[in-house]
Amino acid sequence: MSLMLSEISQQPAVLDGILSRPSEALARLRGHFARRPPTMIAIVARGTSDNAALFARYLFEITLGIPTMLAAPSVSTLYRKLSLPPGTLAVGISQSGESTDINAYMEDAKRIGAPTVGITNDGSSTLATLADEVLLTGAGTESSVAATKTYTAQILTLYRLSQSLGSGIGTDELRAIPDAVEAQLRHEAEVRQIADEYRDMTHAAVIARGLNYANCFEFALKLMETSYVAASAFSGADFAHGPIAMVDEGFPVFVFTPPGPTAPETARLLRRLAGSRADAIAIGTEAATSDLPFSHRMQIFRAMPEPAGFPADLLTPIPSIIPAQLFAAHLATCKGLDPDHPRMLTKVTQTM
Amino acid sequence: MSLMLSEISQQPAVLDGILSRPSEALARLRGHFARRPPTMIAIVARGTSDNAALFARYLFEITLGIPTMLAAPSVSTLYRKLSLPPGTLAVGISQSGESTDINAYMEDAKRIGAPTVGITNDGSSTLATLADEVLLTGAGTESSVAATKTYTAQILTLYRLSQSLGSGIGTDELRAIPDAVEAQLRHEAEVRQIADEYRDMTHAAVIARGLNYANCFEFALKLMETSYVAASAFSGADFAHGPIAMVDEGFPVFVFTPPGPTAPETARLLRRLAGSRADAIAIGTEAATSDLPFSHRMQIFRAMPEPAGFPADLLTPIPSIIPAQLFAAHLATCKGLDPDHPRMLTKVTQTM
Repeated sequence: MSLMLSEISQQPAVLDGILSRPSEALARLRGHFARRPPTMIAIVARGTSDNAALFARYLFEITLGIPTMLAAPSVSTLYRKLSLPPGTLAVGISQSGESTDINAYMEDAKRIGAPTVGITNDGSSTLATLADEVLLTGAGTESSVAATKTYTAQILTLYRLSQSLGSGIGTDELRAIPDAVEAQLRHEAEVRQIADEYRDMTHAAVIARGLNYANCFEFALKLMETSYVAASAFSGADFAHGPIAMVDEGFPVFVFTPPGPTAPETARLLRRLAGSRADAIAIGTEAATSDLPFSHRMQIFRAMPEPAGFPADLLTPIPSIIPAQLFAAHLATCKGLDPDHPRMLTKVTQTM
Repeated sequence: MSLMLSEISQQPAVLDGILSRPSEALARLRGHFARRPPTMIAIVARGTSDNAALFARYLFEITLGIPTMLAAPSVSTLYRKLSLPPGTLAVGISQSGESTDINAYMEDAKRIGAPTVGITNDGSSTLATLADEVLLTGAGTESSVAATKTYTAQILTLYRLSQSLGSGIGTDELRAIPDAVEAQLRHEAEVRQIADEYRDMTHAAVIARGLNYANCFEFALKLMETSYVAASAFSGADFAHGPIAMVDEGFPVFVFTPPGPTAPETARLLRRLAGSRADAIAIGTEAATSDLPFSHRMQIFRAMPEPAGFPADLLTPIPSIIPAQLFAAHLATCKGLDPDHPRMLTKVTQTM
């Protein structure tokens, strides 16, 4: 078994751990921001961690009503400019905690007086040392170059951070997530079978919106780095504004189809794709996809609870990425590639 | 000649027009924000206009020091949440001014008290009617589905908006832009020749950073919509964090190579690509690319002035996109496609 598959299978335990460990940092953040929440949140990250940051953007704006921006690191690291509105909370996300540009941005944010939170898998890393508060993802060593368990651990940690900032999401509700991941993993064989059908795939589009938008970038990244598929990620709305033209008969288009506010637009897109005879693969539950046209479904085997007062897709992002991770890992193997050692990549990437 | 090529060739006149027309709206904005600039700028757009918005993000953060975020329209339109920090200026960009989701976002922004600026090519559009101030791009009717002259007109209008907000960029300096575009157009034959060599291209990556980052999305979009090439856009830094793995021998990678703060990292990436025997195509001036390894250069024929106190790439984004527009238009023709009528697309796209 590849390291990547082994790490995918560790996710229920990693996620359980995040929910069961008390975090003094979260408690301090709750106290610190109880009276005056941040006016804005700026998140800085690269690669898979940047996809987790994109999830956080939607999570924070939707559940906290706090405007959240993804930093453009080069403005700080290359152009030497950084300004954040007063009251901005700066959040850096890095598996290793050793991304030079992320750490440079966080140092700059501290210098101009922003409170900082680091989310990392390494408590002795530079990021952990420099941030005012550290949230450890506790995923254990991730050896595969393709990040899987640290992505879902970052996402669950971001739900936890939202709790500290007053989102009102219940921890009991979050406990449904590791169970759903466990259920999903039991159906690995179904995903492997679909992956085998796509062994000759050279390019693809991956589409999602809203709380699952980050997942389309993460799935595309896994396809690129493990299976060398030229995969492009799009919001369903942006896809309709141009890129849809490149889709001809048989073009593989993977579409995340959660329930909730994004469902009607997603259904409309799938019907349009059916008209172009694209090869649409839905990633969703049976209930959410039963009326939709698609050639395959990467099934989500457990529908998630829909906590009152929140959109129905609130808890779907982590379970939804699991079949995508499994697909990428198996596709690589079907293609005769080693998903653990993509060419030209190392685990820690240094850029400015 | 295709409509697309005809509209590409109109750009010097369109850009001249923007610089020579007095704008009362710009004067009012200058007055309004003279004492208290916006604390933040939120820009909402889709498709090509969203690429112009991405340029504005870097322009505003670098030259104004005002944090600028690209709105996630679905947070407002689908999840029904919108919050902006007090003092935020909301800017909507839409060629037609009739994008339903953009207008819905702008209505929401107005409702919560944000001042609003609409940038559109149609002064009688819904966006023009609802925004507090309207900046008209004055590009004339754009009939090709693939936007070209409205993109550069939006970008030049965004430089103008930055002037009103105090960027200090001189109008004389901006006048170098239409001249450079004119010079570029005189060398169309060179680009056509390169496009002809790539007539069988099915996929590609397009890379840029900083002020030119938006251009990689815009070039990828043109390749997708006119030539059905599966083109993915990346920041050079993000590309190194995973996607570079998919690049094998002969994989076409287009890299914008302006002078200035992004140049050293871009050079490092090109050297790494040379190691993988990718087919790297540089988009830059002879001076900026002379030490770099690449298979082809889409030459930028006129180096831009480097105004004192600004990064050296400040004025490069408009001239740099011209060879890319020409390439996409000619590639479509070389492939036997009609660049003016991409399949599945219409000029105005309605999404929520």
